[in-house]
Amino acid sequence: MENLKELNTSTRVLMGPGPSDVHSRVLRAMSTPLVGHLDPEFLMVMDDIKVMVQETLQTQNPLTFVVSAPGSAGMECCLVNLLEPGDEAVICIHGVFGTRLADIAERCGAKVIKVEADWGTPIDPNNVKKALASCKPKLVAIVHAETSTGVLQPLEEISKMTKEAGALLVVDAVTSFCGTELKVDEWGIDALYSGSQKCLSAPPGLSPVTFSQAAIDVLENRKTKVQSWFLDLTMVKNYWAGAKRAYHHTAPVSAMFAMREALRIVLEEGLENRFERHRKNHELLRDGLERLGFEFLVSEPYRLPMLNAVRIPAGVDEALVRKRLLDEYNIEIGGGLGPFAGKIWRIGLMGESATPNHVNMLMAALKQLM
Amino acid sequence: MENLKELNTSTRVLMGPGPSDVHSRVLRAMSTPLVGHLDPEFLMVMDDIKVMVQETLQTQNPLTFVVSAPGSAGMECCLVNLLEPGDEAVICIHGVFGTRLADIAERCGAKVIKVEADWGTPIDPNNVKKALASCKPKLVAIVHAETSTGVLQPLEEISKMTKEAGALLVVDAVTSFCGTELKVDEWGIDALYSGSQKCLSAPPGLSPVTFSQAAIDVLENRKTKVQSWFLDLTMVKNYWAGAKRAYHHTAPVSAMFAMREALRIVLEEGLENRFERHRKNHELLRDGLERLGFEFLVSEPYRLPMLNAVRIPAGVDEALVRKRLLDEYNIEIGGGLGPFAGKIWRIGLMGESATPNHVNMLMAALKQLM
Repeated sequence: MENLKELNTSTRVLMGPGPSDVHSRVLRAMSTPLVGHLDPEFLMVMDDIKVMVQETLQTQNPLTFVVSAPGSAGMECCLVNLLEPGDEAVICIHGVFGTRLADIAERCGAKVIKVEADWGTPIDPNNVKKALASCKPKLVAIVHAETSTGVLQPLEEISKMTKEAGALLVVDAVTSFCGTELKVDEWGIDALYSGSQKCLSAPPGLSPVTFSQAAIDVLENRKTKVQSWFLDLTMVKNYWAGAKRAYHHTAPVSAMFAMREALRIVLEEGLENRFERHRKNHELLRDGLERLGFEFLVSEPYRLPMLNAVRIPAGVDEALVRKRLLDEYNIEIGGGLGPFAGKIWRIGLMGESATPNHVNMLMAALKQLM
Repeated sequence: MENLKELNTSTRVLMGPGPSDVHSRVLRAMSTPLVGHLDPEFLMVMDDIKVMVQETLQTQNPLTFVVSAPGSAGMECCLVNLLEPGDEAVICIHGVFGTRLADIAERCGAKVIKVEADWGTPIDPNNVKKALASCKPKLVAIVHAETSTGVLQPLEEISKMTKEAGALLVVDAVTSFCGTELKVDEWGIDALYSGSQKCLSAPPGLSPVTFSQAAIDVLENRKTKVQSWFLDLTMVKNYWAGAKRAYHHTAPVSAMFAMREALRIVLEEGLENRFERHRKNHELLRDGLERLGFEFLVSEPYRLPMLNAVRIPAGVDEALVRKRLLDEYNIEIGGGLGPFAGKIWRIGLMGESATPNHVNMLMAALKQLM
């Protein structure tokens, strides 16, 4: 075989649905020579990450940790640990990631009761109420920030009715984490997973997760083994928080170095400032896009600031424009998924990519291309 | 919360059971600014990695790819895709990782027929033969390089009897990959997983996997869904090799940059040269350790060159010496697992850590400490 050449990628501007641009401090921390996954210094890095994930999720949950795999594995981690065959699970579906939640819950052997909303709109709490009354729910799972549609889902009312039904609330916060308000304890969230590569602006590959005491109680009272060994929290928790820090798997040391630095940057900026920055740049982008004739898919009160889903104006060859944005301007934006393929764009303003310069680069390029 | 300080880890010399030292070229490639996980340039990186993993595994298998998680997830990936509830699986156990294989197979709903050997010795093919005759085996799973004991398991005879029984051969090559001979096609291996952080010397977090056509046939004729969504190869394969390169999960872009560079370094050196380097440095270490009074756990023909398991001489406080090696010399070696805790050391000479300087540093430090 002929030897392959040195890596030589283009310098992209990442404005799709994630990954987002990564700060040079994070890249530098990631390239630190390694220490072992059981080195006392690495256990301290894990402790630092745990404390900072608690802070950014606004939770005191002792079982707060990072799954050594991307957000989809975090999703699976929450469901496989909480569901057993025969359990009933209310799954809210208003996009790709709700659909995925239902798929995974079924693979756990659960009976899934679906609560659906048109893609691009939020779930109606009244429909959750009806679903809860129709079964003996072990949990309700819902996506806080639907990356496939740009919908921000209000959670507080649904959380209350979930508690009243004696069920756990499982939340997908992959895209909202570190970009908009997310209060795990105040909102009564029992299990939550996120991703490293959205508003946290670390490289993809890790999934922060937190479990409430009620979720731990369910975990500890399982009648069957968790079907995934890799994601079995009855073991993983002893690596993250046990007195002995028992070996489970080899943690991705470099990715954890990167996550630690990305979390430090978030806390230096401050959560409220960071949320405000995402809001402001969203408004700047919105004004520019509307001037160009784009319409938002989602009605104003439910729009995510970091994931802007807009309909493609008639006559625009969306795939061609996206390709030219990438090829000629090095700007990545996202296309639509599922029923929205070819119909919408998904423009990300996440973490390091949520700046006026990003908005200006994109708007100028779009004007030149359209 | 008070802000945490900048990452400030010690410069370790990694001579444990992995991770091993990582070349600066790999760290540099990893810190390249990101591209998107569906960027045509990233799909080319995936293609490059696939070709180089085929080359290093000496296989033509088209379904050769990388699981976006550590080796344990690669193990789970092989078993969850090949096993269905009620299947019979012959699992060979001669250390921690065979035990883990059996645990995962049981979580898949398989009936496990165990073939055991004393830890520190290889599996006897005659016992595999008896087990195969006692059931209708779907697969035989065996560890090629038992990281918990340092045993190199010969595979060719067991492979032949597995084929004769109409079963698939599943192999754990986490520690042997890129460090000693491993011929997937010639040896008739049907499914194999490895890890990035051993003799490949990339950071931990990824697991190269390959499936033969016979394994793909089993996958495609499943009656039930794969119990893990994240590891379901009926979907993952469309991201790695499909005509459309369909989105499944967000791949760990930076870790893949690192893996590409680590594979390039392996192929520049050449597989045979690399294996010879591991052998020579193992011999250097062996001679030094024996002069200091250490005895190897494993008899000579079955010793792994990259994972040296030695008994602790009487009177040596193993935990204290290991701690002093780390604190005073920055050298990490591994302790024993399970029944060998406190009784053996596991000294790694993997990838970038397999050099005369590593051996000399360790031997000199040990002489000063003991």
